[in-house]
Amino acid sequence: MSYLKNVGVVGLTVMGKNLALNIESRGYFVSVFNRTYERTERFLENEAKGKNFKGSEKIEDFVASLEKPRTILLMVKAGKPTDATIDALLPHLDKGDIIIDGGNTFYKDSIERYERMKDSGINFIGTGVSGGEEGALNGPSIMAGGSKTAYDHIEPLLKSIAAQVDGEPCAAYTGPDGSGHYVKMVHNGIEYGDMQLISEIYFILKNVLKMDGAELHDVFSTWNQGELDSYLIEITAEIFKKEDDVNQGTLLLDNILDTAGQKGTGKWASQSALDLGVPQSIITESVYARFISALKNERVEASQVLEGPEAAGSELAKDEVVEELRQALYFSKICSYAQGFAQMGAASKEYEWNLDYGNIAMIFRGGCIIRAQFLQKIKEAYDKKQDLNNLLLDPYFKDIANHYHTSLRKVVSLAALHGIPVPALSSALAYYDSYRTEKLPANLLQAQRDYFGAHTYQRLDKEGTFHTEWQE
Amino acid sequence: MSYLKNVGVVGLTVMGKNLALNIESRGYFVSVFNRTYERTERFLENEAKGKNFKGSEKIEDFVASLEKPRTILLMVKAGKPTDATIDALLPHLDKGDIIIDGGNTFYKDSIERYERMKDSGINFIGTGVSGGEEGALNGPSIMAGGSKTAYDHIEPLLKSIAAQVDGEPCAAYTGPDGSGHYVKMVHNGIEYGDMQLISEIYFILKNVLKMDGAELHDVFSTWNQGELDSYLIEITAEIFKKEDDVNQGTLLLDNILDTAGQKGTGKWASQSALDLGVPQSIITESVYARFISALKNERVEASQVLEGPEAAGSELAKDEVVEELRQALYFSKICSYAQGFAQMGAASKEYEWNLDYGNIAMIFRGGCIIRAQFLQKIKEAYDKKQDLNNLLLDPYFKDIANHYHTSLRKVVSLAALHGIPVPALSSALAYYDSYRTEKLPANLLQAQRDYFGAHTYQRLDKEGTFHTEWQE
Repeated sequence: MSYLKNVGVVGLTVMGKNLALNIESRGYFVSVFNRTYERTERFLENEAKGKNFKGSEKIEDFVASLEKPRTILLMVKAGKPTDATIDALLPHLDKGDIIIDGGNTFYKDSIERYERMKDSGINFIGTGVSGGEEGALNGPSIMAGGSKTAYDHIEPLLKSIAAQVDGEPCAAYTGPDGSGHYVKMVHNGIEYGDMQLISEIYFILKNVLKMDGAELHDVFSTWNQGELDSYLIEITAEIFKKEDDVNQGTLLLDNILDTAGQKGTGKWASQSALDLGVPQSIITESVYARFISALKNERVEASQVLEGPEAAGSELAKDEVVEELRQALYFSKICSYAQGFAQMGAASKEYEWNLDYGNIAMIFRGGCIIRAQFLQKIKEAYDKKQDLNNLLLDPYFKDIANHYHTSLRKVVSLAALHGIPVPALSSALAYYDSYRTEKLPANLLQAQRDYFGAHTYQRLDKEGTFHTEWQE
Repeated sequence: MSYLKNVGVVGLTVMGKNLALNIESRGYFVSVFNRTYERTERFLENEAKGKNFKGSEKIEDFVASLEKPRTILLMVKAGKPTDATIDALLPHLDKGDIIIDGGNTFYKDSIERYERMKDSGINFIGTGVSGGEEGALNGPSIMAGGSKTAYDHIEPLLKSIAAQVDGEPCAAYTGPDGSGHYVKMVHNGIEYGDMQLISEIYFILKNVLKMDGAELHDVFSTWNQGELDSYLIEITAEIFKKEDDVNQGTLLLDNILDTAGQKGTGKWASQSALDLGVPQSIITESVYARFISALKNERVEASQVLEGPEAAGSELAKDEVVEELRQALYFSKICSYAQGFAQMGAASKEYEWNLDYGNIAMIFRGGCIIRAQFLQKIKEAYDKKQDLNNLLLDPYFKDIANHYHTSLRKVVSLAALHGIPVPALSSALAYYDSYRTEKLPANLLQAQRDYFGAHTYQRLDKEGTFHTEWQE
């Protein structure tokens, strides 16, 4: 039984189990602990059998089984359960030990825990782990924030269990305290955006171009060969060909209830953007779209009384529209990432994290749900200009914008006239058109605010603030 | 010096001063207190001179000058200053005294203060006061939440100082604890939405139909005679004819910097909607639009590299488009109020406030910035059906929707093709089209989530949750 080093894992639900198996498979000895010992026993008797694992019933035995400085990965429910676990561990730990929270934790909690533990000499790392169950087992994307010294100590571990793309592990140090969980939160928000944009494009293909599953599969498979090459496009193509076991001869997709759940990170990303004062409309519209999807009963009622446009569209040139949809999807996706990276920029300033955006794009390339070819382009954009204000200003993305914006316009117009809801696509276009407009109509907002509330305004031609008695 | 009763006012910045003057003018004797006595002296020597006012330098003298049970209106800065004032007052107060917080307070703070004071026997009322400086002086809209007994005691005061519409005072009890400030927050969010929708319509009139100030004034003056009759349309018409004193021969509006400020209530409304799980896209897009307006330097840079569509539109039938814009504005405004009232509904459920939506619409009719004729229609809708899920389902609003949705489609399409950013208008349309769609593409979201995260899904034809092994 030779091994590199030992590592502790607390929490043996799916994510924890799979990460533990992943760690062991890289040559580590893994001590495991779970609040209920039963789950530990089951794990040791099944998946872990014959491998370098040790389970403990008592937390002190678990801690005692680890070499110093101890490395303990927490994979427990975010919030109070995480605090409870930390509180249970702390009395048994020594200075220099490292606690890694790999849960779905709110970044402000990680900031707080980092601060709390700093004084006790225990190192805290809050890390985003992306990639779901499968990623956890075979290689997730890892965004670690917290103590740099501690990170350096565990970097070999994190890099060995992470996804590898072109020989590069998708794990990185993001910066101090809550930065890892913040980056993960924005990642999840971007994921919401990607999924919503895809579903809007799908809805147009299905309801305006009247495509069936086979055609949808072909379109997405083809798209996955080009600029859109990504995990989500790939699995969407797969979904379009999955037949239903219950209603033979139908697509499984057509039998699934159109009510989307969520776990809150998209909401957090939107709320943080609102606090930071950065526009993040695409993620937010995607969150709201899930909320509306949940109002199934109301929608059924509304569909009977609220009218849409007359059916039309048979005269559309199918191939042309498909290419416009492809361009619209790619370009709106770029707008969404532009918003996401701008939000990370604002957070980095606010919390003094000094985030490395190119590096973040690199670790998104593998393991996680939003992995995609085009992340390489984001990396290159930040390589060229580290203090880039907005991705849309980078030469590559600017060119895409200037070539593809017309398609996004046509798609938004088509959807509006055909009664297809496209909250994310239209919000991407509104963002683009706002961002590239030198003079917005916000002068009217300022005039109104000064009229009714004496809020004052600034002028284009002079310094200072002004107030006008508008009423004559 | 005869008077009805006496009332204390703490805080003599503009809003506090004007409310104090308003109260005195209704026959009350007003004791005033300000943290710095200088401001009190200045007030007593100027605006208050010869009227029923008394100022105190020390807070205990101020309290002693009031009849029991004391009624004290706080008009101090929201947040810590309000807490500090309450803490300074409490030791001098007696059971049964009433503190009214009329500041721009976050509703959760009002919930907390209400709870904190409940035990001490001091009554707390958190009230939204809308209408700006002018409303404070001549009649604001008042939304009071807190102790019902205390409200009953001060109702004559609040009703006498409030705006009056058709003989009805625009003041009402909204419900327990933070409900008054919540309603005010949503009111402010709706105000953001109204202003943003107007500014988008203005931008199309100006940049697509190439209207000058005189034409814009005429259009808005005419609109103010019809369904759109409202304070904001009225003052916007006025703004369009205000000439600039500096650059003679130009409109003042054209010289105002297009960077809109904000005081945070729109942001709060959006964050609360995200917490409650209700779609509130129009207010949120309006908040984001202000954020983008603040990126003036970036926009100037972007305008030089990011392209829009070729100029077009000269072949448009002007009168027809103006009428489409009017219908689009009215209908999108209705969508915005539908979202706002649905959000109040969700909050009412969450906090057990039992809000009376018809009553709320009535108090919005006067004093405040969003005062408008059509609020009467909202009142009538809730009179007809108290548990109405969504305004769009009411017969009057349903008819408007079914008659006007085509215009909103055309306007969104026109703006998309002309490069005019319309985040709020397009988000109103997306909301309408989502809400009236029986089957949304969220089935794809669920399939994706089940594919990559085993999140399971529900089916249309069977109860239960299901998981599929998607990979073959």
